Amino acid sequence: MSTRHDDRPIVLGIVGDSGTGKTTLATGIASILGRHRVNLLRTDDYLRYDRRERRLRRLTALDPECHHLDILEQHLRLLREGRPVLKPVYDHATGALVRPEYLAPRPYLLVEGLLGYHSRAMRRCYDLKIFLEPEEALRQRWKIRRDTAQRGYSREQVLRRIERRRADREAHIHPQRVFADILVRFRPPEDDPEESGARLDVRHLLRPTLAHADLSPILDGNPRSGIRLELARDIDGKPVDVLEISGDIPEARARRVEDLLWSLIPEASYLRGRVGSYGSGGREISHPLALTQLLIAYHLIKAAQGVVAI
Amino acid sequence: MSTRHDDRPIVLGIVGDSGTGKTTLATGIASILGRHRVNLLRTDDYLRYDRRERRLRRLTALDPECHHLDILEQHLRLLREGRPVLKPVYDHATGALVRPEYLAPRPYLLVEGLLGYHSRAMRRCYDLKIFLEPEEALRQRWKIRRDTAQRGYSREQVLRRIERRRADREAHIHPQRVFADILVRFRPPEDDPEESGARLDVRHLLRPTLAHADLSPILDGNPRSGIRLELARDIDGKPVDVLEISGDIPEARARRVEDLLWSLIPEASYLRGRVGSYGSGGREISHPLALTQLLIAYHLIKAAQGVVAI
Repeated sequence: MSTRHDDRPIVLGIVGDSGTGKTTLATGIASILGRHRVNLLRTDDYLRYDRRERRLRRLTALDPECHHLDILEQHLRLLREGRPVLKPVYDHATGALVRPEYLAPRPYLLVEGLLGYHSRAMRRCYDLKIFLEPEEALRQRWKIRRDTAQRGYSREQVLRRIERRRADREAHIHPQRVFADILVRFRPPEDDPEESGARLDVRHLLRPTLAHADLSPILDGNPRSGIRLELARDIDGKPVDVLEISGDIPEARARRVEDLLWSLIPEASYLRGRVGSYGSGGREISHPLALTQLLIAYHLIKAAQGVVAI
Repeated sequence: MSTRHDDRPIVLGIVGDSGTGKTTLATGIASILGRHRVNLLRTDDYLRYDRRERRLRRLTALDPECHHLDILEQHLRLLREGRPVLKPVYDHATGALVRPEYLAPRPYLLVEGLLGYHSRAMRRCYDLKIFLEPEEALRQRWKIRRDTAQRGYSREQVLRRIERRRADREAHIHPQRVFADILVRFRPPEDDPEESGARLDVRHLLRPTLAHADLSPILDGNPRSGIRLELARDIDGKPVDVLEISGDIPEARARRVEDLLWSLIPEASYLRGRVGSYGSGGREISHPLALTQLLIAYHLIKAAQGVVAI
C-alpha cells in the first residue's frame, strides 16, 4: 500500500467485549477528526435476532451466530470502497431491530463492536485495528453503570448477563485480540482500585505491525513523568512496545505530548484549532483517555495522508 | 453471454405503475418455478421515506427521489452475483419502514416494482424485463380494489392519489417501457368493458431483444381460436410481434399452448408435475393470465439452462 485513493475512507476498528469503552473512545476520536467527516458504525446493529429472540434461543450477543456477519463484512467492504450502504439499526434501549439508516461515504469510518475482526475479509478492511481490554473489575463497573442507566437493566440482571457471557467471551471475543495493532488497557491506579474515571492509567501494547508515533522527544525516563515507553513481551511471548500513561501525568507534560503529536501531523493543524484542546467540554479531563484518542487519531490522519502504514 | 454460472440467479424484472398486477404476476411465476427456489424482491421496500414523510414532503412513491435507488442497484448487483443482502422492508399496511430481512441467494430472483429499470446499471441485472401496462380504466379498478382492501385507503383517497400521481407516472414510470423485452397489456373484452378478472384479454408485445417461444404449431390463423401472433408496430413505430390471447380462448386450446410450452423445456417437466395445471387453486381460471405466467417462466427456465438469451 504505497498510495491511497482520495475517495476511499480510512477505516478504524475498535473491538472489545461489552462495556470496554468502545463508544467512548470512538466518540472522542470522531470529535478530533470532525464529526461531519466521520461515519460511526456499530456492529451491534448487525444483530440477527432482537432481544426477545436471543432469549428464546438462549444466545448471547457475543455469539457469532447472533449476527449477520456476512452482511457486516459486505458493508465494510462497500464502505471501504467509498460506496453507501443501508445499515441495519438495533435499538439498545428497547432491544428491537428497527428501520435501517442510509450511510453515505465520509473520509473516516470508525467501526466499533464485539466481532469486528471475526473474519479475514473483515480484518482486511481496516487501516488500524484497536482492541480494548480494560482490567476486568473495571469493565464490570463500566458495564453495570451503562446498562442500568441506558439499557433498562437492573444491577442484578447485568451481573447475571456478565456471568452468562463468560464462555462466549473466551470463545469469540478474546481470540480477536491477536489481530490488533494496538491493545489498550485502562486500569485503576494502585492506590485506588475503585477508580473508574479520570484517574485511570492506560497501557498501550504497540504491535510492530504499525509505524508508531516517535515520542522520544518527551520520554525522559523519569519515573514521575507520567508517561513511559518500554520494551516488553505480550502474553503470547512476542515482543511489543508498551506505552504507559498515568492518570496522574502532570498537566504540563500531557500538553507536551499533545503538542508533539500535532507537530508530527502539521497538515492537520486546522483540526486542532477547531477542536481545541482534548478533553474540553465541561467534564473532568482524563489525560490517559484524551491522549489515547489523539494517538489513534494521529494514525488515521497519517493514513489519510497516504503515508505507508507499515 | 454464451454460458452462465450455475451459482448466479436468473433475474426477472416486472415493472409497471401501481396497480398494474405486478405482484399477481410475480406470485404466479414463483409458483411455477417453485416458491422455495425463488426470491421475490419488491422495490417498494427501498423507499427512503415512510408514508408520513412522503406526505410532509409532498412526494409520491413514483418519484425516484423517494427511493434509495442506489441501494436497490447495489442489492440487485449483489443478488445477481449470488450474494446475500439485508433487504429493507416497507410495510404497506402501516406505511412504515421496519426491520430488514435477510435474503439468501436462490436460483431465481423476481424483482417487481415501480422503478426497477431506472438506471442502466439496474437494467443490466436482468435476464428478462417485463413491463405491465393494462388498460388504464382497468388499472384504476384493480388499484382501488387492492388499496381499499389491503392498504387502508378509502375509495376517494385512492382516486385522489391516482390523480396526484399522473405527472410522476408520465415522468418516471412510463419512460421505462422502452427497456422491456415484453410489454404485457391486460384489457377487458369488447363486449364487457367492466370485466377485471378471468375474461380479460391479454396482448404481449414481444420485442426482438429476445428469442421468443416458437408457438407456430398451435397458431392456425383461425380468428376464433383465441390466440394469434401478428406483426405490428409499437407506439414508437418499431416492429414488434404481437401475441394476443383472448379471455374466451377455449379450454382445449389453452391446454395445447401449455403442452407446447412445456415440450419446449423438457428438462423442466418435473416442475409441471409438481405444480399441476396452471390456475389450479380454487379460483376461476384466467387463461390469459396463466399463459402469460407460463410464457415468462419459460424464458427464465431457458435462461437457467444456459441458453443464449438473444
